[in-house]
Amino acid sequence: MAIRVVVWGENIHEQTNAVVRSIYPIGMHRTIADALNADPGIEATTATLQEPEHGLPADRLEETDVLLWWGHKDHAAVSDDVVERIANRVWEGMGLVVLHSGHFSKIFKRLMGTTCGLKWREAGERERVWVVNPRHPIAAGLPEQFVIEYEEMYGEPFSVPEPLETVFVSWFAGGEVFRSGLTWRRGAGNIFYFRAGHETYPTYHDTTVHQVLRNGVRWAFNPQPRYTAVHDAPNVPVESALEPIVERGPRLHKPGDAGYR
Amino acid sequence: MAIRVVVWGENIHEQTNAVVRSIYPIGMHRTIADALNADPGIEATTATLQEPEHGLPADRLEETDVLLWWGHKDHAAVSDDVVERIANRVWEGMGLVVLHSGHFSKIFKRLMGTTCGLKWREAGERERVWVVNPRHPIAAGLPEQFVIEYEEMYGEPFSVPEPLETVFVSWFAGGEVFRSGLTWRRGAGNIFYFRAGHETYPTYHDTTVHQVLRNGVRWAFNPQPRYTAVHDAPNVPVESALEPIVERGPRLHKPGDAGYR
Amino acid sequence: MAIRVVVWGENIHEQTNAVVRSIYPIGMHRTIADALNADPGIEATTATLQEPEHGLPADRLEETDVLLWWGHKDHAAVSDDVVERIANRVWEGMGLVVLHSGHFSKIFKRLMGTTCGLKWREAGERERVWVVNPRHPIAAGLPEQFVIEYEEMYGEPFSVPEPLETVFVSWFAGGEVFRSGLTWRRGAGNIFYFRAGHETYPTYHDTTVHQVLRNGVRWAFNPQPRYTAVHDAPNVPVESALEPIVERGPRLHKPGDAGYR
Amino acid sequence: MAIRVVVWGENIHEQTNAVVRSIYPIGMHRTIADALNADPGIEATTATLQEPEHGLPADRLEETDVLLWWGHKDHAAVSDDVVERIANRVWEGMGLVVLHSGHFSKIFKRLMGTTCGLKWREAGERERVWVVNPRHPIAAGLPEQFVIEYEEMYGEPFSVPEPLETVFVSWFAGGEVFRSGLTWRRGAGNIFYFRAGHETYPTYHDTTVHQVLRNGVRWAFNPQPRYTAVHDAPNVPVESALEPIVERGPRLHKPGDAGYR
Repeated sequence: MAIRVVVWGENIHEQTNAVVRSIYPIGMHRTIADALNADPGIEATTATLQEPEHGLPADRLEETDVLLWWGHKDHAAVSDDVVERIANRVWEGMGLVVLHSGHFSKIFKRLMGTTCGLKWREAGERERVWVVNPRHPIAAGLPEQFVIEYEEMYGEPFSVPEPLETVFVSWFAGGEVFRSGLTWRRGAGNIFYFRAGHETYPTYHDTTVHQVLRNGVRWAFNPQPRYTAVHDAPNVPVESALEPIVERGPRLHKPGDAGYR
Repeated sequence: MAIRVVVWGENIHEQTNAVVRSIYPIGMHRTIADALNADPGIEATTATLQEPEHGLPADRLEETDVLLWWGHKDHAAVSDDVVERIANRVWEGMGLVVLHSGHFSKIFKRLMGTTCGLKWREAGERERVWVVNPRHPIAAGLPEQFVIEYEEMYGEPFSVPEPLETVFVSWFAGGEVFRSGLTWRRGAGNIFYFRAGHETYPTYHDTTVHQVLRNGVRWAFNPQPRYTAVHDAPNVPVESALEPIVERGPRLHKPGDAGYR
Repeated sequence: MAIRVVVWGENIHEQTNAVVRSIYPIGMHRTIADALNADPGIEATTATLQEPEHGLPADRLEETDVLLWWGHKDHAAVSDDVVERIANRVWEGMGLVVLHSGHFSKIFKRLMGTTCGLKWREAGERERVWVVNPRHPIAAGLPEQFVIEYEEMYGEPFSVPEPLETVFVSWFAGGEVFRSGLTWRRGAGNIFYFRAGHETYPTYHDTTVHQVLRNGVRWAFNPQPRYTAVHDAPNVPVESALEPIVERGPRLHKPGDAGYR
Repeated sequence: MAIRVVVWGENIHEQTNAVVRSIYPIGMHRTIADALNADPGIEATTATLQEPEHGLPADRLEETDVLLWWGHKDHAAVSDDVVERIANRVWEGMGLVVLHSGHFSKIFKRLMGTTCGLKWREAGERERVWVVNPRHPIAAGLPEQFVIEYEEMYGEPFSVPEPLETVFVSWFAGGEVFRSGLTWRRGAGNIFYFRAGHETYPTYHDTTVHQVLRNGVRWAFNPQPRYTAVHDAPNVPVESALEPIVERGPRLHKPGDAGYR
């Protein structure tokens, strides 16, 4: 069965900015989805900010294996409820691939627990993406480095938690560097941040970038059943202790009480 | 100069539960602060839920090097504004030591980005705390394992991000295990979670636990200046690029624009 | 195509100790290989200490995707050349699953760079293996904990590098704990250490342990091409620099020199 | 009491190469030691390849808190016994700071368990060292980036284990990047790799580099007692088990036997 992917796009600049529209006439989200669907093991659809519940109602998220997130202009417009719903699904095992300016999205900041800030410069600058973790699944089939001729610069420090693994580090013509491919696990969910993809440049038409996106989806996919127990904090009564113990001392809780939250 | 510590206590059960009051007549927070103040390099004061702004107004937090957090009964009563204020100070470099039931506090969940759930049983059970990272600063002066004869059991899985380092793992008489000493860095702030300390038992009167708390404070303390830049996402204009570059291609932002957040 | 696995067994106690022979009449290595071969995606064969080159000549290792290692009585008898050959294959991407007393094998110590010591007690003791990383691939299909009724105890501290992820933590009846499932990456090779499997107990006849072994193999398998460049330290001449630079200053090396090693 | 540091220098090119001698007339090792001794909390002396036991007899290493290592031309000339002696001291808690071409030293490869390879180009190239982990102790007092105008390029992939933390990432004029400040812990010993310092350039006369070296020493220093137990694998007899257990099942070892190694 194919990996069920939703590509979420903010879809604002495609509507309001002629340059962006000319580069991504079908929208960035559909361009990305098309690139993913070139892999027969992936079934990608799209969702946008403007749809009801941003296109991410609970029943759709429950049938989503991996979510890609691209947003920039109006992170604040994303409903807190939807953000919390996504976070819950990530903890249950849904993969999440956060793209470019999504570093400041509510969902990424929510899952990182940090500010996720960085430096930036919009100058159509050469970026060289270096693979620092060869043969990592996300680097499958990639050359040792690849060039994105026109990109927005993002510079360190990138205020995120130390990753599980660093996969890419980028070089910029103006003198900056950036850890441009990073992974984390949160609950049962795999998270991959990939830096490239400013909307005024044709980054998502690049075939090497397509390969990164497909690799990222495959890596983030967790084929195991939903880990719903991640939401629980179960009491284990004395009488069902694995090893026989005798209750001792005073206590706060009566039998059957839920714990405090 | 001494490390300036604030021990935050929820201070509810000490007021409402006779058993807890009898064990901690001056409150858990003061008991902990006294243990810390036995170290001449530490100056610990206290704050509680009931005080205005929970005793943590901005000016006090700005002069706090390390914050200890113990809460249990009413995490929800902590103001979201104060939580955000604390998170900001952690990112700037304030250390944070989260104790026991503080695993479900707003501030811990905020900084972890996960559910922070676990199993539990309140049965006055024997806990053996094993040092798995000998000579880690938090284990300084400790034996290879120590016993807390009466404790609440916390069992795995503990839904937190993979730590920077695992310092302690606990054994429980009823058959469970728990990673009971874990570290993370978020922004410039060091975070230490220490499991022990249920309010119906005299854990915070234990001298070995005192040593852990003092070690934890010393480890979490970041002596460097406040890292206020963690809140920024500065634009680096083309004309101030470190290496000479020429602007190319279209752009969204006008010179001097702030980025989107 | 199936994952090509070699199960390496020291094969001494099966020959010299009646108890071990009675539990593993076909040898531990064949017992393990049979358990792996129950997965149609795995093709496991065996190799032993006593064979020429310990059954691991270069051409066989080149066709091995994942190697499992069980040794105990005579780690020193393993040839240093073969150890180095294995290490090279791990760096190139061969997976390695190290079992139980293999913690003191030459190959494990070689790849960890630490002493790999631990505490132990041979008393047929109850071990409870807890999954601390639910939905990790190595925990696929496992219950939240499982019991191995008779096992040798291994106790912390386990002197290995901080792992990429901790998957299992074990509880022992005698009061010890142990991080019993740990992962690392070295070069392009994935390494999984699994604690259980003392030769005087029937651990490798346990179906849950079989599941762990199969999961471990699948996790350790790196389907990408051999990463032979891991052995190189290539010079990048000025004239082939990605960005045009001009050579400046004095130098040690003449054009075409190899670097020092 | 001051931190007792030994700066180890290979001391070959200072003797055989006029350029190197002119830049480092007192030797690189003494130049580095002088920079360290500017910190009143550090007492640095030197040792070289040419001295008996390379200047690192057992009694000297026992009184060494942190060892710095610079070697390049003849790593093979370092005695395996001395390498093993140093590794043992690191596991016991001695800090180790490995510099530049020391990436291929026996001691670094021994402790990493990987090939430690990288790309290189000797062209007097501009290096920009970026702090990616602000307020890490090793970055204390540093600007957000600093320039080393003439350096040898080292390029990714750098074949080392995923670090505990990445502190620096370097940009090179020719288009490469490098994780130029990385940390690990092995046993009780803290290890810091710092990239810069090619012998044909005046890197170790740079005051910012001096600050990095001093910070690195202070970070790597473990003030706790020697962790000699790291060498042991103690048996814990049934009769001294922490929790009462009864021996069951067959066993290999007689009471009092040492384990196999």
